[in-house]
Amino acid sequence: MTYELLKLIDVLGTVLFAISGVFAAMQKRLDVFGILIIAFITAIGGGTLRDMMIGDFPVSWIRNINYSIIILVSSVIAMVFNKTIRNLHRTLLVFDSLGLGFFTVLGIQKALAFGLHPGICVAIGMVTGCFGGVIRDIALNNIPLIFQKEIYATACITGGVVYFLLLKTGLQRDWLEVICIGGIFAIRMIAVHYRLALPGIDGAKREKSGET
Amino acid sequence: MTYELLKLIDVLGTVLFAISGVFAAMQKRLDVFGILIIAFITAIGGGTLRDMMIGDFPVSWIRNINYSIIILVSSVIAMVFNKTIRNLHRTLLVFDSLGLGFFTVLGIQKALAFGLHPGICVAIGMVTGCFGGVIRDIALNNIPLIFQKEIYATACITGGVVYFLLLKTGLQRDWLEVICIGGIFAIRMIAVHYRLALPGIDGAKREKSGET
Amino acid sequence: MTYELLKLIDVLGTVLFAISGVFAAMQKRLDVFGILIIAFITAIGGGTLRDMMIGDFPVSWIRNINYSIIILVSSVIAMVFNKTIRNLHRTLLVFDSLGLGFFTVLGIQKALAFGLHPGICVAIGMVTGCFGGVIRDIALNNIPLIFQKEIYATACITGGVVYFLLLKTGLQRDWLEVICIGGIFAIRMIAVHYRLALPGIDGAKREKSGET
Repeated sequence: MTYELLKLIDVLGTVLFAISGVFAAMQKRLDVFGILIIAFITAIGGGTLRDMMIGDFPVSWIRNINYSIIILVSSVIAMVFNKTIRNLHRTLLVFDSLGLGFFTVLGIQKALAFGLHPGICVAIGMVTGCFGGVIRDIALNNIPLIFQKEIYATACITGGVVYFLLLKTGLQRDWLEVICIGGIFAIRMIAVHYRLALPGIDGAKREKSGET
Repeated sequence: MTYELLKLIDVLGTVLFAISGVFAAMQKRLDVFGILIIAFITAIGGGTLRDMMIGDFPVSWIRNINYSIIILVSSVIAMVFNKTIRNLHRTLLVFDSLGLGFFTVLGIQKALAFGLHPGICVAIGMVTGCFGGVIRDIALNNIPLIFQKEIYATACITGGVVYFLLLKTGLQRDWLEVICIGGIFAIRMIAVHYRLALPGIDGAKREKSGET
Repeated sequence: MTYELLKLIDVLGTVLFAISGVFAAMQKRLDVFGILIIAFITAIGGGTLRDMMIGDFPVSWIRNINYSIIILVSSVIAMVFNKTIRNLHRTLLVFDSLGLGFFTVLGIQKALAFGLHPGICVAIGMVTGCFGGVIRDIALNNIPLIFQKEIYATACITGGVVYFLLLKTGLQRDWLEVICIGGIFAIRMIAVHYRLALPGIDGAKREKSGET
């Protein structure tokens, strides 16, 4: 994929993850500062945990001030225009799902660059994409959403497996990225549209309970 | 101790920690994926936190795919045969306590290899043995069990202190390990059998409230 | 500032953070061991997270056994004399606020030494000062206090910004530290005295609900 397009998805994903943090924090009636911190945690949590586990220091958000600026600006905008932005929920979902795909692929490629086992790379990709939201939910005293209705994380893992299957075919890296990000995006959009969810262990199907 | 025996305890401990994660997650009615993640967190959490604090990267579970495979397989078995396995609670307790002893000694020896102070090594051993369960409980929105009824962690710390007392006597390392793992195992089994618990600060004795 | 004075503030801050952990844990009726762990987490959590993000290993509390001893001794004293100590709440607040200022400045200076961007340094200073309390609250199954009534963290960030403004004036480092610690201390004391708090996003003012 062209570098500019990837860069754009990175920024959009960061913005959307921050916005999802803002909305989750507002539900718990935090003050302005608390909302900002939760926005940061949501946007950078997955990548930070990834870097702390594979050993890449300082962790990414610390190396590049731009992430902080993007998160700060988009959080303030989300707080000010929160009613308008909520109404764009379909647009938000599109960007959020694109961000999920992008961050997962980013995590996989970083893990690959550290020479890790493909199975571990898929796990690291999932952590990168999903654990910002997990830490957000834990900090807000909720059981993480993706542990309960989670085509979210399954999408990342499926995308990751597809990545390595295609890697063996010798496909060009640009196409790999397009297909993998597109696949995660598609699974997520379909899951939300048809309200798909994994069963619990007792086989009971869970209700979809709000936006991720 | 022979390498093969230690390896076996390592595997059994990982299996049991994963199973305890599966059961805790099922109580909160998570979906299949959520249960798997909690199983992973329980089994690798302590070692991961240890490695992230002493600075040993990539953290252990990332370096060796076998842990992930063991956790995945034993979690699936625990989900499928959960009723049968629950009935083996005495067997589970034996393996869990052996695993606790093993992981504690493993943590102590790793901290020693990094040249840390004996007091810190004991703390690192306790973190290795106990903090998988702590992170599991926090992720499931519970106050960590070992903060409330905790001969669990006290067993690790006692075992760790014994380790360093014996180290000074010049005892052979194999025997050190046997005694230390056996001691932690024994304290834990006795505590569960007699329902021992530490007092709270107001002196009130706490009720034993379920399996760790 | 003279090294001895800084050392004293470091010790006092550690003691006070540990004591705040003891009191928070006692409210949740943890046992003795749980209280000790929460005291440790509160006192070392911020610095540990900082070191794990910038990549300074082993993390500080592991390198220096003195922190553990200080925390252990002051926690035991706080448990034994908890009624007496609670009555000293104004004294506690003074030391706690001094500790907050000190840890923030310490975090800023460490981040600077790693060559990070000023904006990131301020964030790292805030993490160092505040996230021990955040992790404490999460472990105790509370929504972190500073996300709800938080002149706490705002004080750190204001102090951090002042630090860099003064740094540009070429002010001597000793004076920088005095002014920055003093400023954070003053903001915090004034905020507590006048019960100041940031508004939530709906503009509702929050009630002050207990000591940090």
